[in-house]
Amino acid sequence: MDRTALTRMRELATRERSELDRLLDETLIAHIGLRDAAGDVMVVATALVRDGDSVLIHGSTGSGWMRRAASGQAVCVTVTALDGIIVARSAFESSFRYRSAALFGAFTPVPGSAKRAALRTMTERILPGRSAEVREPLAHEIAATLVLRMRIGEWSMKVSDGWPTDEDGDVAGPAWAGVIPFGRPPREAPLPAPDLRPGIPLPPSVKRMADPGHADLV
Amino acid sequence: MDRTALTRMRELATRERSELDRLLDETLIAHIGLRDAAGDVMVVATALVRDGDSVLIHGSTGSGWMRRAASGQAVCVTVTALDGIIVARSAFESSFRYRSAALFGAFTPVPGSAKRAALRTMTERILPGRSAEVREPLAHEIAATLVLRMRIGEWSMKVSDGWPTDEDGDVAGPAWAGVIPFGRPPREAPLPAPDLRPGIPLPPSVKRMADPGHADLV
Repeated sequence: MDRTALTRMRELATRERSELDRLLDETLIAHIGLRDAAGDVMVVATALVRDGDSVLIHGSTGSGWMRRAASGQAVCVTVTALDGIIVARSAFESSFRYRSAALFGAFTPVPGSAKRAALRTMTERILPGRSAEVREPLAHEIAATLVLRMRIGEWSMKVSDGWPTDEDGDVAGPAWAGVIPFGRPPREAPLPAPDLRPGIPLPPSVKRMADPGHADLV
Repeated sequence: MDRTALTRMRELATRERSELDRLLDETLIAHIGLRDAAGDVMVVATALVRDGDSVLIHGSTGSGWMRRAASGQAVCVTVTALDGIIVARSAFESSFRYRSAALFGAFTPVPGSAKRAALRTMTERILPGRSAEVREPLAHEIAATLVLRMRIGEWSMKVSDGWPTDEDGDVAGPAWAGVIPFGRPPREAPLPAPDLRPGIPLPPSVKRMADPGHADLV
């Protein structure tokens, strides 16, 4: 059976690549399922960004799970946004508004020559404008970093963005029904590091991220 | 090797059960890693609540992955909160503030006689007070629901709640460093269902959840 063909709640399935891209671009982390050294399933949360038709993750060359992911084993990358609570007239019909996508495939290491550009892409997606505010990564930093890429190929996605679907008998009853929407996590006022030298102003990248007017920034 | 013994970033590891409980209680969803019918790894997002020394999930008896989880296969349940961006003076040292826990074990089905209480626990954790505002679940609704429980036994957790740790040369340089803390996703104004009958007031459970004064509610 095609694992991307949903067996239940088919009405929630989407094949819209634009919906997938929006979810990936709004979300900073993914949960990656893979096998550990003993063959058991493990799930690790890590920063993930989309780069066109692929996704990128990075980590230390000393990370066991990153090395296993780099070996090309089959993985599942799941990205989820929780958008609200669907409050139905019964507990049974109550649920979440959410978007969740599962990408199936395998990671391949980004080769040394392309690592710098891939890391820059990750930085710019997580904190736009930051690359220009910091020094270039050093050769030994690049060498100590594994960057892995997976093509967006086989994927499935569910989008629950509707309303309670109560039975007629419950609709006629006394219970309230509706949705409590969840906003995006607010970026609070930036905190300077305890060892920040005096006189260094807040940089534009951090200012923009903390400005509620830039809701487009993740 | 004990899979809960972290191989890297050991300084981020915690064995504080209270830290684990706080994360589980603040978070509405988990990402569950298991094997699909073909033996491949899949990761599914689902509502998860803590009930004392165990965690509970629920779903339709028609859900393939729930049935596989119910069969007692080894699973990994990962729960993550993203608490901010650690903005270091170099891209290399930049990272997230986060908490992430992985629980290893197997789910067992909650037997019919105990399902009602377990579902009530889930409802009350997700929307406190809601159980008293809706009718009791019907027998066929309980029968159509799988409730699974996993004991909190083998687990590991990482907590990153610190500051940038830049090299001396970077600290002496011109770049800003600090943290952009992320708040909890705000609960926006509740939206009545399109088919809500006139005259049904907002119930206390929903009012409380949407009230920013109740920051303790997840």
